[in-house]
Order: sequence, then C-alpha cells, then structure tokens
Amino acid sequence: MPSIIDFRSDTVTRPTPAMLEAMFSAKVGDDVFGEDPSINELEQKAAALFGMEAGLFCPSGTMTNQIAIKVHTQPGDEVICDALSHIYLYEGGGIAFNSGASVRLLQGNRGRITAQQVADAINPNDVHKPVSTLVSLENTSNRGGGACYSVEEIIAIKRICESNHLKLHLDGARLLNALVATNEAPTTYGMLFDSISICLSKGLGTPVGSVLLGTNAFIQKARRVRKAFGGGMRQAGYLAAAGIYALDHHVKRLAQDHEHAQAIATCLQRKDFVGQIMPVETNIIIFEVKGRFTPKAFAEIMEKHHIKVMAISPTQVRMVLHLDIHPSMVQLTMDVINSL
Amino acid sequence: MPSIIDFRSDTVTRPTPAMLEAMFSAKVGDDVFGEDPSINELEQKAAALFGMEAGLFCPSGTMTNQIAIKVHTQPGDEVICDALSHIYLYEGGGIAFNSGASVRLLQGNRGRITAQQVADAINPNDVHKPVSTLVSLENTSNRGGGACYSVEEIIAIKRICESNHLKLHLDGARLLNALVATNEAPTTYGMLFDSISICLSKGLGTPVGSVLLGTNAFIQKARRVRKAFGGGMRQAGYLAAAGIYALDHHVKRLAQDHEHAQAIATCLQRKDFVGQIMPVETNIIIFEVKGRFTPKAFAEIMEKHHIKVMAISPTQVRMVLHLDIHPSMVQLTMDVINSL
Amino acid sequence: MPSIIDFRSDTVTRPTPAMLEAMFSAKVGDDVFGEDPSINELEQKAAALFGMEAGLFCPSGTMTNQIAIKVHTQPGDEVICDALSHIYLYEGGGIAFNSGASVRLLQGNRGRITAQQVADAINPNDVHKPVSTLVSLENTSNRGGGACYSVEEIIAIKRICESNHLKLHLDGARLLNALVATNEAPTTYGMLFDSISICLSKGLGTPVGSVLLGTNAFIQKARRVRKAFGGGMRQAGYLAAAGIYALDHHVKRLAQDHEHAQAIATCLQRKDFVGQIMPVETNIIIFEVKGRFTPKAFAEIMEKHHIKVMAISPTQVRMVLHLDIHPSMVQLTMDVINSL
Amino acid sequence: MPSIIDFRSDTVTRPTPAMLEAMFSAKVGDDVFGEDPSINELEQKAAALFGMEAGLFCPSGTMTNQIAIKVHTQPGDEVICDALSHIYLYEGGGIAFNSGASVRLLQGNRGRITAQQVADAINPNDVHKPVSTLVSLENTSNRGGGACYSVEEIIAIKRICESNHLKLHLDGARLLNALVATNEAPTTYGMLFDSISICLSKGLGTPVGSVLLGTNAFIQKARRVRKAFGGGMRQAGYLAAAGIYALDHHVKRLAQDHEHAQAIATCLQRKDFVGQIMPVETNIIIFEVKGRFTPKAFAEIMEKHHIKVMAISPTQVRMVLHLDIHPSMVQLTMDVINSL
Repeated sequence: MPSIIDFRSDTVTRPTPAMLEAMFSAKVGDDVFGEDPSINELEQKAAALFGMEAGLFCPSGTMTNQIAIKVHTQPGDEVICDALSHIYLYEGGGIAFNSGASVRLLQGNRGRITAQQVADAINPNDVHKPVSTLVSLENTSNRGGGACYSVEEIIAIKRICESNHLKLHLDGARLLNALVATNEAPTTYGMLFDSISICLSKGLGTPVGSVLLGTNAFIQKARRVRKAFGGGMRQAGYLAAAGIYALDHHVKRLAQDHEHAQAIATCLQRKDFVGQIMPVETNIIIFEVKGRFTPKAFAEIMEKHHIKVMAISPTQVRMVLHLDIHPSMVQLTMDVINSL
Repeated sequence: MPSIIDFRSDTVTRPTPAMLEAMFSAKVGDDVFGEDPSINELEQKAAALFGMEAGLFCPSGTMTNQIAIKVHTQPGDEVICDALSHIYLYEGGGIAFNSGASVRLLQGNRGRITAQQVADAINPNDVHKPVSTLVSLENTSNRGGGACYSVEEIIAIKRICESNHLKLHLDGARLLNALVATNEAPTTYGMLFDSISICLSKGLGTPVGSVLLGTNAFIQKARRVRKAFGGGMRQAGYLAAAGIYALDHHVKRLAQDHEHAQAIATCLQRKDFVGQIMPVETNIIIFEVKGRFTPKAFAEIMEKHHIKVMAISPTQVRMVLHLDIHPSMVQLTMDVINSL
Repeated sequence: MPSIIDFRSDTVTRPTPAMLEAMFSAKVGDDVFGEDPSINELEQKAAALFGMEAGLFCPSGTMTNQIAIKVHTQPGDEVICDALSHIYLYEGGGIAFNSGASVRLLQGNRGRITAQQVADAINPNDVHKPVSTLVSLENTSNRGGGACYSVEEIIAIKRICESNHLKLHLDGARLLNALVATNEAPTTYGMLFDSISICLSKGLGTPVGSVLLGTNAFIQKARRVRKAFGGGMRQAGYLAAAGIYALDHHVKRLAQDHEHAQAIATCLQRKDFVGQIMPVETNIIIFEVKGRFTPKAFAEIMEKHHIKVMAISPTQVRMVLHLDIHPSMVQLTMDVINSL
Repeated sequence: MPSIIDFRSDTVTRPTPAMLEAMFSAKVGDDVFGEDPSINELEQKAAALFGMEAGLFCPSGTMTNQIAIKVHTQPGDEVICDALSHIYLYEGGGIAFNSGASVRLLQGNRGRITAQQVADAINPNDVHKPVSTLVSLENTSNRGGGACYSVEEIIAIKRICESNHLKLHLDGARLLNALVATNEAPTTYGMLFDSISICLSKGLGTPVGSVLLGTNAFIQKARRVRKAFGGGMRQAGYLAAAGIYALDHHVKRLAQDHEHAQAIATCLQRKDFVGQIMPVETNIIIFEVKGRFTPKAFAEIMEKHHIKVMAISPTQVRMVLHLDIHPSMVQLTMDVINSL
C-alpha cells in the first residue's frame, strides 16, 4: 500500500528514528517531585532560547494557552484577540470555561490585529464592562494562512499594553515558523511578551507537548493551574527529550517546509478550480476551491491519490507542510494537482 | 430651580404618587419563606400576562438575564446573540463570569439577528468548539435604537432553535414597548420563548425590579441561582407592589413615549448638526451629532438648558422617553433644539 | 384572628410605622448613575459607624458575603471558616459556585473558631493544595445559637492572618447584636476586618438589604461583582431609607430582644421535654427537644397556639427574638410553654 | 553510588526494559483525529476489562477525576466524599476550581465512607443548599493507608445513590491493588460505578497516564472537558503502549508489593519509635513515628541509608511499595530499620 501524504495538519508527524532514539534513551524521573531531568532540561533550554526566566512543559498547546489566560486574568476580565484566534475558535470555549473571562474579538488582517485596534478595544473604567487585562496574539496565525507579524507591529501593541496595564500573551504554536520566515531572534520575542506558548508537536515534529514561558513568578502560578487541570505528568521526560532534540535539529529545516508551501501554491494558482490563495508566508496554504470542485470533492479526489488535505470551510481548503512531507512527496502532490 | 428633563435613560423615573401609595400600602412578608403576598401576586400576574407557568422577581434585569443564561447553559456552552446585545456589552462580562459560557456574536441589523444568521452560527459536534445551546434576543434592542423584531422573524428563529435543540431567551427589558409598538399579544411571546426577562424599572416606571418568566421547572432552577447570587430579598413586596401597579396602569401609556420620540426625532432631523437618525420605532432616539457639535458638546449645551442626554459613542447621542417626561417637557426640549 | 408570634427568624419583621414613614418620604435617584441620595447616605453612614472607608448597599446578606469572598479570592484559593458557617451551609454553595474557591471547614465552638485552628489550617506552598487566602468569621454565629466572639480572640486571628497574608472577612448578619451584647465599639471591628457585611433586615428590622464595608479599592471591585450578579438596583433609596432609620433607632433596643431570649430560655429549661439549651448570649435560642415531643411535633403544637418556631434538625428547635415580638408576646409564649 | 530505594510513592517507577521496548515499537497517530491505534487499543482494553462502554486516556489521574466531577456536576452542585479524599486534598482545589461544586466532607474510616453517612449527607430540596449530585469513593484510599472497600459496602452506597438520583464515581488510582487484595472481578466494579478513573503510573508502573471509564455518552462529554483543559495529546500512543503492557503484565505482581508491605510493617511494629501502624491491606504503610524520632528525623536517617520515605504529617510516615522495589531492597530496608 502506498504511504499517505498527509497535509491536514503539521500535528500528524511521527518522530524520526533519531528523535525516537533520543526519546527512549532519555533520563526520566517523577516530575511532580521536580525530578525529571529531561523535563527540567527542556524547560530551561526553551526559556534560555527566548531569554525568559522559566518554562513549563504541558501536554498540549491548548493547555499552555489556557493556563496563560488563567494566570493573567480573573473572572470578569476581558481578553482582546483576533476573531480568528485559535484560543477563541478551537479550544473548547476555554477562555470562558476555564477563566470566566469575556472576549473582545477584533477583525484583523489574516489573523493579525493592530495596535490601534487594541487601543480602541480597551474598556473604560465602567462597572458595566469587563476589565480589559490581556491581549493575545497568534504568530503565525493558523486561520490567517500562516501569516506573520512584523516585530514593529508587535512593539506598537506592546506599548499600548504597557501604558494601559494589560498583559501580552503569544500563542506561538508556530512561532518558530515565524522566526525562521522573518529572520527574527527568539530573544526579541522574549522581551516583548509576558508569556509565550511554544508547540513542539507541530512543525518541530515531536509526538506530544508544548512549553509555556514567562517569569519565575508567572510559571509558579502556572504550575498551580496545570495541577488543577491535571496536566502534571510523572516520567514525561520521554516526551521532553523529543522536544530537546527538536529544538536542536528541527528548527532550521522549517525553511524547507516554507519553500514547499510556496511551490505547491504556485502550482495551485494555475488551476481553474482554485480561487484566491492567501499569501503563503510559512508552511500553510489556504486557498479557495471553486467551479469544478467543492472543497469536499477536491479533498476526496486527492485522497484517492493517497493525499490528505482538509476542507476547512464551505469554500476553502488548507494544506500544511511539515517534517514528514519530503521533497519527493511535494513533487508527487504537484503532479496530481496538475493532472486534475 | 427648574426641574431637570432627563433623557439619559428610562431607568431614571421616580414613582408617581399613585404608585407610591400602592407601594406603601402593600402587604408584605418574608419572600425567602415564600410568604410575601405582593411578590407572589406580581410573579403570578406577569406569568399569566404572557401565558407562562411561573415568574421570579429579581432586583434587576441584569440578574434576570444572567440567571436565565445560567439555567439554560453549562460552562463550555455557547450563547448566540447580536454583537450589540446588552447581555454581552453591559452586564459586566456576566456570560463568562457567571456561566463560563462562550459567545458567538452576530452582526445584526440594529441589534436584531436573523434565523439564517442563527443557523449559520450553530457549532458542529466537534470537541474543539463550544456546544451551541442558547440564542438570546433583545426586543426592543437598546443599542439598536429601540428597534423591534417582527413576530415572523422570531418564529423563524424559534424553528431553528427547536430543530437544533437550542433554547431561546428574550431580554425583554423593553418588551412592553415592543408589544405596544407592534400591537402583538404578550401570549404570542410567551409561546415562543423558553424564558423572558421583563424590566419594571424602565418604561414601566417602578423604582426597582425585573421578573423572569418560564416553566415551573425553569423557575425552580432560577430560584437556586438567585439564592447563590444573593438576589433573594425579604419583604420586597413594597417593590413588587409598584410592579403590579405598573402592569395595571403604565403599559398603554408607552404609546405616548413613542409619539414623543417621533416628534423629537422629526425636530432633530431638521438640524444641520444632526446626521443619521436611527429609525424611531419606540421610545429611544439614537442619532449622529456632527459638524458644529461633538456628542459631548451637544450634551453639555443641552445640560445648560436643564436637559440631560447621553453621548453613547464618539459620534452618537441617545435620548430615551419615559413616564417622567411630560408633553410640556417634550415641547420645551424641541424649543431648545430648534434654538441651537 | 389572633396575630401570629413568629420566632422562626429575625428576618420576618415588618417595618414599623415610623420606619415606613421614613421610607415613604425618602429622596431617591438612579443608583446605577450613583444618584440615589438615600443609598449614598446609608453607605456613608454605615462606613462611618465602623470607621471604614466605603460601603455598598446590596439586596441581601448572602450577596454582601458572596461579593466579599469573590473580591478577596481567586478561583483555586481556599476559604477557612467554621463548618457551621452561613457562607458554607446556607448560601447555595456560593463559595464554589461564584468564586471557584475551596473550603477548609473547622470544627469550632458554637460556630466560633480559634487563632490556633486558623494557623493549623493554612496550607503550605504546595501546588497540590489550594492557596489559603481568606478567613471568614460569623459574629454572632447563627448555627452557634447567637454565640459572640471576644475581641481578644478576633485580634489573635487577625495576627495569624496578617503574618500569613490572609484577608479577614466578617459575616456580620447579626453583628449589632454582638456589639450590644459585648458592649464593644463598631470601630474596633472596623480596624480588625478587611471587610464586614451588615444585615439590615434581621434584628434591625428593615424589609430588605445589607451593607458591605471595606476600603475604597475593595468597594470599587465589589461594585463590579454586584453588577455582574445583577445586584445593582435603581431607585432603591426607599429601602436604604429604612436602613438609615434602623441605624438611628433600632440598635439599642436589641438588648430587649436579648433579655426576652433569656427569659424564654429560663422558661424552657424547666420543661421535661427540653434537653440541652445552647448558652443564650443574644437573640437566638437553640434547644434540644426530646421525650414527649419531637422538634416537629413541638413546632406543630406551638403553631396551634399561633406561635411559630423552627425545627432546625431532627433534635433541635430554634427561636429567634426580634423587633416584632413585644413583651406581651413573650409572656404569652412562656405561658404556652408552661402549659405543655 | 548505590541506587536509591524510593518508598515515597508508587508514582516514581521507571518503565522496565520490556515496557520500554513495547513503548518504543508502538504504532502511533494523531489522537486529536482519533487516529492513534495504541491509544484506541488501550481505551478499549481498559473499558473491556471493567465491562464498561468506553475509555479516555488522559495525562494524569487528577485529570480523569476532575473530568469525571465536571461531567457529573454543574456549578452549585455538591460532591459527597471522605474528608481524606485525594480529590479534595491533593488536586489543587479542583472540585471548586474546575467545577464550581461544593463539597460535603464525611469523616470516614481510613478514607472509606458508609452508605448511612452518604444517606445522611444528601441535601433536602432547599435553595439554601447545593444540590447533592455525586458521591466519589477512593479505592484503595491513599490517605487511609491503602484501605479497601468491601463490595457489599459499595453496593449499599450504590443503592442510596440510585434511589436519590446521585452519580457514583470511583477514584481508582490504586483500584487494581484493591482488586488483587480483595480478589474481586473488575466487571463487578464496572457495574457499580457511573465512572471509574484508573491510574497507569502508580502500581502498574507506566511513566504517564490514566484512563477514565464510563458510558459512551459520558466519555463523549469527557472528551470535551479534556479538550478545554488542554489534555488532548497527539501521538501519545508511546505512553498508551506502556499502559497496554502494564495491564497485560503488571497486575498480578501487585500481590508481591502487598506482601512486601506486610513484611516491612511487621518489622516496623517491633520498633520503640513506631506507634500505631494503619492496617496494611495493600501496598501502603502509614505509621506513627514517636519518641526517639520525629517523622522528619526518621526520613532523614533513612535517606542516609539511601532509602526515601515520606513524612506526611507531623506524626506520620508513609512508605509505598511498587514495581521498582525488589525483594532484596525490601530485605535491605528491613535491615536498616532493625539497626535503628
């Protein structure tokens, strides 16, 4: 049976043999006692990479985001974010569920909001309205087709936050894609955000896990929330070891995913059944399917060729490049698209 | 000192002498024991008026709305409503704070949403997304300038709710204004909604209170939530008696407020500093102020004439008619506007 | 029909003619705009009485308690209190419902806990355990039969709170009974507690309402919570005026209720069907009923004599003295008891 | 350096070489898409073992417990459990934090409560009191020194639950220890409980994970809560494979841990510095340390011999037997104890 080429998400990767080797030779201990050396190493390594004080390993990016929102807010506060944010759309209503916090949803540009929008969205001191306490950005923006912020725009948002006493969180599920694409230093981001969530199981290719970064005081509070959610794990160093390996070996190669995405987008734009393609900045391609195919029909015909893509709306398809999609698979995919 | 003509809100009314007489001759008892005859009478009277099973007297319309949302939802559920809804904008973030529920905010027409919008907003069965469980309408819509729904549109929304197992709540803070304006029967509304919140302290002119209506089972649950919020009161029959009086004597006269609003709007539209005026359907006038005045400056100049209006946005002013604004005051107000 | 003598609770009182007159002639305004002069006066008067910065009028003592707990805690914190506390037993599970806070329940002496118990109950800094942040006392203790704290014991608890960074709240539903009984100054209490809840509708005899006291910053936050609960009222000055009247005229007379309670207790202890009587310190008598009567049977036989008492457990009856129980009624009640 | 003998908890185990081999060769996929074959197999295997419909793999026993409580309750409900329950004492205040639920804490016998206690603790239908909706048992009881319920007692509790419409949850962190000790069939437990949480990372010796069991409808709701907590993992089949291995190979051997615990307890009871030892029914020994040693001093002197035990209170030490404590280590430990 031919193997599947799976573009549905960059979460579907399986560890490489070398990563698997790193995992199963990991030193582990009981992390609830603070004794798992691999988890401790990963948390410190990720914090150091971004120049932040401390890190916390969690089972998912949803948990790192939800913990950050919980620590930064109190019930009755309001979180300002793009209407397409993962934290609002895809985390089970967690902002309200876990934190009792309201949302102010901004209509951004491919998932990215501006300092002016943030400034306009901050509530006055009026008991009728929630207290605006947190701005959350997503970089790259998943539903924005992998769009990246410029550092200048983030700095402008940070200034608004500081002068209004708001915290600034980054959902960095694909932050390393953004850093590779924009050639920015992680420490620049570490200086700008009060907390950053980094996913290890997307472009970086580990099986499980995310790291939440912040100050020591923030991470201490985050540990409490992780405990109450039940996110504390025992000998999870096997998973953390994959994260250490990924930070050492899988960051630079993200550029290849970005090139692959560009190539496929170029191929797609020649087809009559493809409408608007969101600008491809990183490893995500979101495009309109029209005319001869519906998104669903397109996904089905691709699957007959052992290629999986995802219909994400009645008019759009998403394809995501990642570690498990090698150059030959990209070529094969383009051949199939060309043949339709 | 000349008396103030206060158009800021229909909440500012003071009881008439006859209402005050009704209040202070009320029979009262300890409502926590279910022994306040005036509260019992008001709850039954309001329920009967709408053909619903039971009522619950509460200190405010915010409480009746928040209790309804709490009873209809569980944390992690999603409430579908217009982005201008009072429940989202002006209740202290209560949807998330009290109920842990997410919001799906629709861009309606002057605060009114359509059955199609509701249908499109219902989430699929997907753990990433909250469970859509409640639609909340507001009639009339405060931020929509007192706009009314047609019964046909509500019936269409009700059908969508029923076929998708969603509950339908009505924030009827100014429902009696809508009923008078559209000449609909209260019982029609009682049949369409799973719960209705009626304010007594707006157009109806009582000092304090709202009534929540629903089935017996719903009101039993609502009593529990009221207790936990601390909304249960003891000898509140003094307040309930005002509500009984208002339902008997202050409903039909709402038509006069609507006429007054029309007259003032007609006066306003001749002025160069007045831009777009939202269609005046009931007792609220929301209009753009431009050119010679900012909304704030307009409010200040009116105040010099002992007339209070409210600047509700950087471009808009709101004036609300009510029981305490008599025909002579309306004439005086128009004279002042004409003189500017 | 003979009138009922109602010992079930001191909440059942109806306003005296003079209080009703004060209510009837009150100046009122829209408190949501901060414009109700009677509410403003009551809030300031109550704060001044206790030497605290600010007050907030609320519909019930449950609301003032629940708001205080909400402001002092965050979800995941722990409240330390006696296992018989009203906040735990009778507020609809509000500590968890409204605040997401855990409880540490201490086995006190007639509802009163000691500094040593508090010290032992404070959690260490361990993510497995909630953060201890609030101690709540109740004085007098309702389920403790109206027992009073000594100021020395409260000072000792305050020291433990201060050295462990815990807040100290007082459920003072019947605090004025305690002050009259112990002859302490209200300002002594104002200095010891971070927040105090005072009920107006129990011994003080108003129909509705409680006042929450604290610093200006605390009360500002409390206003937000009151709004989200829907506890903000409009022209509630009619109720506040009763509170002003009560603070002026109904405090000293509480001593009479205490004497009445003593007299009835003395009468009860001679009866064979009465077991242990809790020491009567204020206006509450809780006593065991045994032998010839069950508590329920005793309550039924008393009701045949138009006297209402409350069976509060399978072995206990509670009788509460208040404003509406005049000396002649006390004599009549004792005659009935003696006749059984 | 001599290796450590770690009696602090049965959570400290590291996988055996054979378990690690099973993990290493596991088939994995993206569990968020439902495509991880090892997770699916583990969930089905655990459900089948107990004769329940479905299972859900989670990162910890705290999460499986907290999800169960969340699904069975609504905010304002009350959970009945022993005062020593792990869900109350050691899950970060999660009952209130995650579920807004109150607790009714019973004083059981070594962590075990009776049907009569449960019956007495169910609240009447009274808005002052939370709605009793869930009873949670813990078997074996951790703080009860590994005490086991008899099936008869559980059946009696189940009857009370059924006749009062309460759900019954089992915190089965060490349920397999109980089943081995009492020689009961897992399916008997599957019939009695509405939900069961099984830990894989305690006596069973896997690095990470627990399984929640219940009906299909219950597990569907549980998946939503897991998502909102961020407990959904991607290629966690590596962890699940360890669970499958443990269910196949590590259950029967628990009897050896129980024998080891008995042997050590017998050794301890001869020492003058050992006071009361809780009856040893499974793999936990909780004993009083007095006279020559404080618990802390005893733990320190044992650590000098490379043996770790845990002082769990000012008077008590806990020792827990598990997979990584071999017969020779037990002998060595007893030699050290004898030498003190």
